[in-house]
Amino acid sequence: MKSLPADPLGGIPLEEFGLRLRRGETTSESATRAYLERGALLEPRVGAFVHVASDQALEQARAVDRLLASGTDLGPLMGVPIAIKDLLTVEGMPRPTCGSNVNISDLIEPEGEFVRRLKRGGCVILGKTRMTEFAFGLVNVIHPTPWNPTDPRVHRMPGGSSSGSAAALAAGMCAFSIGSDTGGSVRQPAALCGLFGYKSTFGMWPTDGTFPLSTTLDSLGTFTDSAKDAALAFAALTARPVPPPKRLKGLRLGRPTNHYFDDLSPEVATATEDALRALRDAGVEVVPIEVPEAAEIDTVFGPLLSVELLATLGSDRFVASREILDPVVWNRAEPMLGFRAIDYVRARRRQVELCEIAREKMRGLDGWVTPTTPDPPVPLADYRTPEKAAGWIRRGTHNTRPANMFGQCGVSLPVPSPGLPVGLQIVCAPGEDARLLSISQSLEELLGRRVRPDMSAFL
Amino acid sequence: MKSLPADPLGGIPLEEFGLRLRRGETTSESATRAYLERGALLEPRVGAFVHVASDQALEQARAVDRLLASGTDLGPLMGVPIAIKDLLTVEGMPRPTCGSNVNISDLIEPEGEFVRRLKRGGCVILGKTRMTEFAFGLVNVIHPTPWNPTDPRVHRMPGGSSSGSAAALAAGMCAFSIGSDTGGSVRQPAALCGLFGYKSTFGMWPTDGTFPLSTTLDSLGTFTDSAKDAALAFAALTARPVPPPKRLKGLRLGRPTNHYFDDLSPEVATATEDALRALRDAGVEVVPIEVPEAAEIDTVFGPLLSVELLATLGSDRFVASREILDPVVWNRAEPMLGFRAIDYVRARRRQVELCEIAREKMRGLDGWVTPTTPDPPVPLADYRTPEKAAGWIRRGTHNTRPANMFGQCGVSLPVPSPGLPVGLQIVCAPGEDARLLSISQSLEELLGRRVRPDMSAFL
Repeated sequence: MKSLPADPLGGIPLEEFGLRLRRGETTSESATRAYLERGALLEPRVGAFVHVASDQALEQARAVDRLLASGTDLGPLMGVPIAIKDLLTVEGMPRPTCGSNVNISDLIEPEGEFVRRLKRGGCVILGKTRMTEFAFGLVNVIHPTPWNPTDPRVHRMPGGSSSGSAAALAAGMCAFSIGSDTGGSVRQPAALCGLFGYKSTFGMWPTDGTFPLSTTLDSLGTFTDSAKDAALAFAALTARPVPPPKRLKGLRLGRPTNHYFDDLSPEVATATEDALRALRDAGVEVVPIEVPEAAEIDTVFGPLLSVELLATLGSDRFVASREILDPVVWNRAEPMLGFRAIDYVRARRRQVELCEIAREKMRGLDGWVTPTTPDPPVPLADYRTPEKAAGWIRRGTHNTRPANMFGQCGVSLPVPSPGLPVGLQIVCAPGEDARLLSISQSLEELLGRRVRPDMSAFL
Repeated sequence: MKSLPADPLGGIPLEEFGLRLRRGETTSESATRAYLERGALLEPRVGAFVHVASDQALEQARAVDRLLASGTDLGPLMGVPIAIKDLLTVEGMPRPTCGSNVNISDLIEPEGEFVRRLKRGGCVILGKTRMTEFAFGLVNVIHPTPWNPTDPRVHRMPGGSSSGSAAALAAGMCAFSIGSDTGGSVRQPAALCGLFGYKSTFGMWPTDGTFPLSTTLDSLGTFTDSAKDAALAFAALTARPVPPPKRLKGLRLGRPTNHYFDDLSPEVATATEDALRALRDAGVEVVPIEVPEAAEIDTVFGPLLSVELLATLGSDRFVASREILDPVVWNRAEPMLGFRAIDYVRARRRQVELCEIAREKMRGLDGWVTPTTPDPPVPLADYRTPEKAAGWIRRGTHNTRPANMFGQCGVSLPVPSPGLPVGLQIVCAPGEDARLLSISQSLEELLGRRVRPDMSAFL
């Protein structure tokens, strides 16, 4: 049996990797090679990537190493090997398929500003990761689903739609990874794979060059080992500093009394209450708040998402593709073909109002805390039919969709739990991303940071 | 027979009125009184107002006079008596009806920032002016239409939807007036009443407190005697200076070879060609341009407008109001009740693209010139049926709708014509309002400025 090369980020933060790189203790090339070798061994089981750019990544890594040696420092992400969801165009790699068998090549834009920022910051791009079709939902039935790396024995849901980016990081096949989040597609897989997932405020990171699921709800995000790593990436990609972790004593976090704590599985309920108790013990004020508007995800979020995807695809293409579309996608979008424009406009106007309402409700609070998802990762085998998959998607996004509807930024932070991973969601007002990442680091210092697991059981 | 008091702005620009006010040669009160007296005599024929606030206006005028005498100068609009379209809420006046018999009181917002700016600038508000129902189209069949003051003998169309604001100024019942323009509702009545009409760039002037016809196309605007007056009002209301008139020699104006010059009446064709010849003789370069996208008003502008109005009213209220809605409004909006959301989203996205295309096409040009409308004012009697009215609306907005769709700012400038008024439309790229008003003044210096007519034939 082959053995896995050590994970270059095993046990250390991104910042420490950067220091080692600059002290000459490691190189981008060696880190890239380690991730490619780990990937070659783990991918047959995990299935996180749809495209691995081995030669290109190694060439990029060597160039970055030379550049650094010659005195040019591109900043804190220089030489860091990453993976990118196959929804974003990367020049020099195959055009995104966005997880679909439908020909959408006419809808693919050239590489956008966000990927250019990653490249200009010196990131090495290992490849493109698997996703659910059009990022519309958390799991598909006709397309393969990556294995959740937290359980070598049972093929459990990794979450979605950024399933591959979450699995690639969770299995130690990259240093961090990029996803997109329209209704929870970063936060939910982060929770299920035990990662820190950050979803930016709508409009914070440019989405040109990203296939649009919803032009009013899409946002980009990152999967990292920790809030600390996410803050480093955010600062580098946004050219905006993240304040140091805030003192826990005096933080005021809203805890919704409705919607978000409905019908939790016992594991999630227990881990969440334990985390909230630890926060209170550390001096955080947890304030009960009412968010009745969260229930409007059905009437506001749902129509916006489906209609905008259908408008992008065009109804002719959608209808003609019935046989090759995932039934989860077909069943959910098809009834919206005849949805009325006046109802769409009303939903959209209501969403704009809801953003304002949520912003008002946030005043005097540092953020809201909720469970990210109601369940730990379930076995894929139990959700193989379109109906079961749809029910699971609905349940899995119950707590994440409101943040997109409200225009908030949000994270999922892993919290201590004896068994499978559980995530705590923290959301902040639009544009308060730096503050969110600062608070997240404070909570992480209290609750503990993820340690990269030994993946040898997957060999 | 009673005689009309002299028009306080007769023959003089707003700037000169301001100088006389500050030299103590006139007062706001006397100007306000003159307009109210003229209004009392002319209104039975013209019918421009739905509400005249005589006592309130006189009280406001006296207060402004005292403030000025005590040493506080509110700027160039101080003491100027104006009229406002009944689409904007003015605190202390009846709630806007927006030209409708339908109860829309729940949709009326409090007074908005634009009216507050007028008030803070010291404008005296004489009253609210008549408009077509919901500003949706240029004329109604069940609601009365103001008399176009340019012809005392025949009741001709004043244009719409800001019909009352145009007629009030054209008849010398105010110093200037406020309208809104979603598809031509300032530029078209300005052309027909021989006024200078300015439509701001979408988003340039805040529309809170204005009943929304289309939340993606609405813009506010002014009716003035001249481009010079419009520039003064713009600078005061936007806190942004207008550059001095540019030299005509060296100006480059695009003249569309398609759409805008189709099927013009002989009077408009002749007056337009004469004006363009005069411009060329003065050194303006008139450059032929192609704007095939203007034809997309049918597929892009039309759906956005109708759907957004229906979304505001709500389909239940709309359908229940059939008997009291103007048939022109009913016939146009009703078929859009079932319009599909995906087609709306596509139209909206196309509109965003078209703004970019139009902006590109404008590069290297100072603006585009076209006729504002294809016809001079026609007799109202010939357009009494819903079908004829609808045909006239369609024809009358053929050249103005594209600017709203393209996100442009625009004006209608009266040009010399032997008979009824003819307007020349100038449009500029989004946000280039100050430049547009500068160019307009240059053209006005060449082509001549409106002289307020003697209205005694209306007594």
